Amino acid sequence: MLTILPDLAPQTLLALYRDNTLTPRELIAALRMKALAINEHYRAFIHILDESETEPFLHHLEAKENRSLPLYGLPFVIKDNIDLAGIPTTAACPAFAYVPDETATVVRRLIELGAIPIAKANLDQFATGLNGTRSPYGACRNSVLPDFPSGGSSSGSALAVALGIASFALGTDTAGSGRIPAAYNNLVGLKATRGLISTHGVVPACRTLDCTTLLTASASQASALFSLIAQYDPADDYSRKNPQWNGATAFGAVRPGFRFGVPQSLDFAGCPEGDALFAQAVARLKAMGGIPVPMDLSPFLEAARLLYEGPWVAERYFVVRDLLERDPKAILPVIRDVLEPAPGYSAVEVYAATYRLQHLKARCDAIMSGLDCVLTPTMPRPVTLAELHEQPVAANSLLGVYTNFMNLLDYAAVAVPSAFMSNGLPWGISLFGRAFTDQYLLSLADAFQRMSGLPLVGEQTLESPVKGRIAENDKARVVVCGAHLDGLPLNWQLQDRGGRLIKVTTTAPCYRFYVLPGGPPMRPGLERCDDGGSAIEVEIWELPSAELGSFLTQIPAPLGLGKVELSDGSFETGFICEGAALSSAKNITSTGGWRAWLSSGDEHKTPA
Amino acid sequence: MLTILPDLAPQTLLALYRDNTLTPRELIAALRMKALAINEHYRAFIHILDESETEPFLHHLEAKENRSLPLYGLPFVIKDNIDLAGIPTTAACPAFAYVPDETATVVRRLIELGAIPIAKANLDQFATGLNGTRSPYGACRNSVLPDFPSGGSSSGSALAVALGIASFALGTDTAGSGRIPAAYNNLVGLKATRGLISTHGVVPACRTLDCTTLLTASASQASALFSLIAQYDPADDYSRKNPQWNGATAFGAVRPGFRFGVPQSLDFAGCPEGDALFAQAVARLKAMGGIPVPMDLSPFLEAARLLYEGPWVAERYFVVRDLLERDPKAILPVIRDVLEPAPGYSAVEVYAATYRLQHLKARCDAIMSGLDCVLTPTMPRPVTLAELHEQPVAANSLLGVYTNFMNLLDYAAVAVPSAFMSNGLPWGISLFGRAFTDQYLLSLADAFQRMSGLPLVGEQTLESPVKGRIAENDKARVVVCGAHLDGLPLNWQLQDRGGRLIKVTTTAPCYRFYVLPGGPPMRPGLERCDDGGSAIEVEIWELPSAELGSFLTQIPAPLGLGKVELSDGSFETGFICEGAALSSAKNITSTGGWRAWLSSGDEHKTPA
Repeated sequence: MLTILPDLAPQTLLALYRDNTLTPRELIAALRMKALAINEHYRAFIHILDESETEPFLHHLEAKENRSLPLYGLPFVIKDNIDLAGIPTTAACPAFAYVPDETATVVRRLIELGAIPIAKANLDQFATGLNGTRSPYGACRNSVLPDFPSGGSSSGSALAVALGIASFALGTDTAGSGRIPAAYNNLVGLKATRGLISTHGVVPACRTLDCTTLLTASASQASALFSLIAQYDPADDYSRKNPQWNGATAFGAVRPGFRFGVPQSLDFAGCPEGDALFAQAVARLKAMGGIPVPMDLSPFLEAARLLYEGPWVAERYFVVRDLLERDPKAILPVIRDVLEPAPGYSAVEVYAATYRLQHLKARCDAIMSGLDCVLTPTMPRPVTLAELHEQPVAANSLLGVYTNFMNLLDYAAVAVPSAFMSNGLPWGISLFGRAFTDQYLLSLADAFQRMSGLPLVGEQTLESPVKGRIAENDKARVVVCGAHLDGLPLNWQLQDRGGRLIKVTTTAPCYRFYVLPGGPPMRPGLERCDDGGSAIEVEIWELPSAELGSFLTQIPAPLGLGKVELSDGSFETGFICEGAALSSAKNITSTGGWRAWLSSGDEHKTPA
Repeated sequence: MLTILPDLAPQTLLALYRDNTLTPRELIAALRMKALAINEHYRAFIHILDESETEPFLHHLEAKENRSLPLYGLPFVIKDNIDLAGIPTTAACPAFAYVPDETATVVRRLIELGAIPIAKANLDQFATGLNGTRSPYGACRNSVLPDFPSGGSSSGSALAVALGIASFALGTDTAGSGRIPAAYNNLVGLKATRGLISTHGVVPACRTLDCTTLLTASASQASALFSLIAQYDPADDYSRKNPQWNGATAFGAVRPGFRFGVPQSLDFAGCPEGDALFAQAVARLKAMGGIPVPMDLSPFLEAARLLYEGPWVAERYFVVRDLLERDPKAILPVIRDVLEPAPGYSAVEVYAATYRLQHLKARCDAIMSGLDCVLTPTMPRPVTLAELHEQPVAANSLLGVYTNFMNLLDYAAVAVPSAFMSNGLPWGISLFGRAFTDQYLLSLADAFQRMSGLPLVGEQTLESPVKGRIAENDKARVVVCGAHLDGLPLNWQLQDRGGRLIKVTTTAPCYRFYVLPGGPPMRPGLERCDDGGSAIEVEIWELPSAELGSFLTQIPAPLGLGKVELSDGSFETGFICEGAALSSAKNITSTGGWRAWLSSGDEHKTPA
């Protein structure tokens, strides 16, 4: 029996397993004991898997070919609204419980990759709540301060990671349930773009909005896991295909110059530390090379209010209607109160709210289009268990101000630890962005976390970043050197795609520059060379990654897009030219660039 | 005064204006007379603009700088649920009528481009109907056979074009309203992807589904108009940005080998000619180079039934609720009957139907993913005025079987004339495809129309196609010659993006082929040359256009994507190589391709 548990960071466990100083079997047995020991106080788990229940997963790992699985022997915890075959799913409502025959897609995938489920975690009943106290299995206490809640609804999932019982945990998030408990417990909470992590086998809250989430000690861990589980699932009607720019793990370098939105006014609900803590987070993003952009958060906040004040509650009602009619007392009074108005909402009210949301989304999208991400506190301030006891609805609602709008507006978000408050409680920020920018957000979160230097939960330490890797978002860069330059005849091809000029710079001093026969418009060719080259003036433009392909396909021979070395030694996608076309072209390297050549008047002497 | 009207094809009118043998003022005056003359019989118009009302538009054209406007002097008609400032919008309900201060975005754009609105057209009241008889302004008669309706709800719009009173017309389409009247009157009806043509200034039917449509004599005209008006509109909350592959006019050549879905069983509602007419259309698409792919239409048809049997009617009710409560008799009984169940639908029923639709959409999308388009009849069969009189609801519903699902499933569709029935009535097909493939569908429709050789309405003739232009859909092609070939080490980069191998072929015989230093994986470079070249084996792959950019950005120097000439003389986007890297690379042109070189064993002799 293990007497001293190692930290549960993937790189720690995988190294111990590799060295044969630890086996998954030993670890799981020890974690089971620990889970049982802490549960009386924290109420983190509804069901802790016994030896016979974990045996199939351990057995799976003993096959030799499975030793190299990426998640080999990593213990994880499953929120108890997500199915694991043969183990009851309760959604924190005993009368609702059923034993599923089938394991949820995302859980099955994790197990196939070597991870080991060790418990089903407590939650706010039917994932309806943001605080973690709404459960007949007990109110979850905070991992740091006992007078505070764990946050919810993914309360037990967060506690499992925070208390060193699991390497990571699965939660769900409809209005903040995967992020609020992260903020409360010094964790990263990834609410990925809707549809990227399967919800097949998850008890719905609002099916049109639900996301399966990851709770981890670090953004790099969330990134690695997300890259493994973000897969199209034909069994999930709401599944979406993940574009490849969002496919690879993200932790590496961050490209400086990113524009992060900073809400112009924030409400910390009376918390005297809020302003300073948020300013510190802003300063950290600036230190990472970010450019703060003041923004109006009010349409986002208005969308947030729609969720709880509007007809979406009918989705929650849809799920529990049968039980509510059959045995209303089986449902917690606070949840019954939430559901109570649901049957009264009409179809007309749904459409009215849908139109209002669409109006707000159009406004929010317009704001987002000029930003790479937005920074907010994850919640206005932590509320206490006492406050929740006194005002179970109002105190809960306060927690969701900065999280409720995300799923409605179809954004991706990641909650990241940012500080500890003076009372010792963790305090977190959220970074959010357009759909399908998850890995990019995680790369920012990773850099943020490295810069903050906060201790990780469970004595974990951060993995080394991947050298030379830069996470892309949904924008791509293209280096232009001729007729696509700002104001020149083909520049509209960039403008029409929503292109934006990022920088005027030069190539590395290893290019020759030619004017090609043909035109109008006249066009140059850039040739990399070993000697006799110069630095040529270029512009870096940014355009939506989805439009880069149509930009490429309209480029005629002999030009194309490859990689151009810039003056700072970096390589960016940009115009290159086939060599054969240059043998008969006029060398204009000495002009230093297309604009200089155009203004030289030489243009009119060159035969078209 | 004009005694003989020219045909109203844009190329005809623009040529007459250019030659000064006709002025817009003369034409509009003559068309006004004609519109007044036919209206008693056809009931096409609710309001025909008088001289003072058209004067501002004519005046606008008299400025010298406006002579070159692309739609200079083209007369058009506006369905009377679309706003023209100062003219009443009735939606075919006098009690609902209002005089808008603002012109609908799409109408304003057309006017700015030189087009002249000449009338507001009759419609099924509140665009609720597919037949054109549900109007207090009179039942619209068919343009060819008086015993048949015009089809609706864009009934008057269709008649205006069919009877030679407008070059084109604006309609709307929620369930088929822009396509059914096209089929009835030998017209093209474009129901573009939702959100691409602004609905700002349009009386909503179902706001989440409504589309503004074009009715034209030809697909090439619709394509040219669509390329001018498909613009993001910040005033329309449902507006969407049109990707650039869908931006250019489409009429040109069609790439052979396209895969068109052919429903395995179709119901022609007892029409004895249906089977043969549809088979003729299939044969025509095959003659265009298409590959018929049998498919199951049942999930599409099930989605269609959801629309009229489900809660979406609450959206229609939302629009007229005030009037219905104030003055129910102001609304036609048949429309009142449609709206009657609307207030009774609950929010829960909306979400239940939404989930069902999402399930069907996932199935339909999976079917669509392997197809370039789907062919259906536009309607099972034309119904008569007598049938509509006897069974106003059932006969109307029959018309929508093959159109009702399109907006719900977010597909683009174009209705195209295909034949004349033995009784002389036009008979049409529809081509539909994924969102944002409008111009591609129009290019197929254009080729279909050219091949059919049917007379156009109003004695119009087809414009010449644009030489050398091939319309792209949402897929892009890429020519690979090395490690990306099927089964080789980098092929996963295509597979992970949903890539599909289209063809194994060779380049034109003007390329040299090299193995580059470096690797693994080892990679070749292709160099175009004036002499000493060979035909090199390549593969053509197809992948989503939106993913081509991320494929490109991961290609390291010295490779890139440009244009590769193939054995048939065509150029396709494919791998090229910077010249500088080839000077030290080993020439393997004689092997004829990468696979041949790999199997030669030379690989192991080349220093990495």
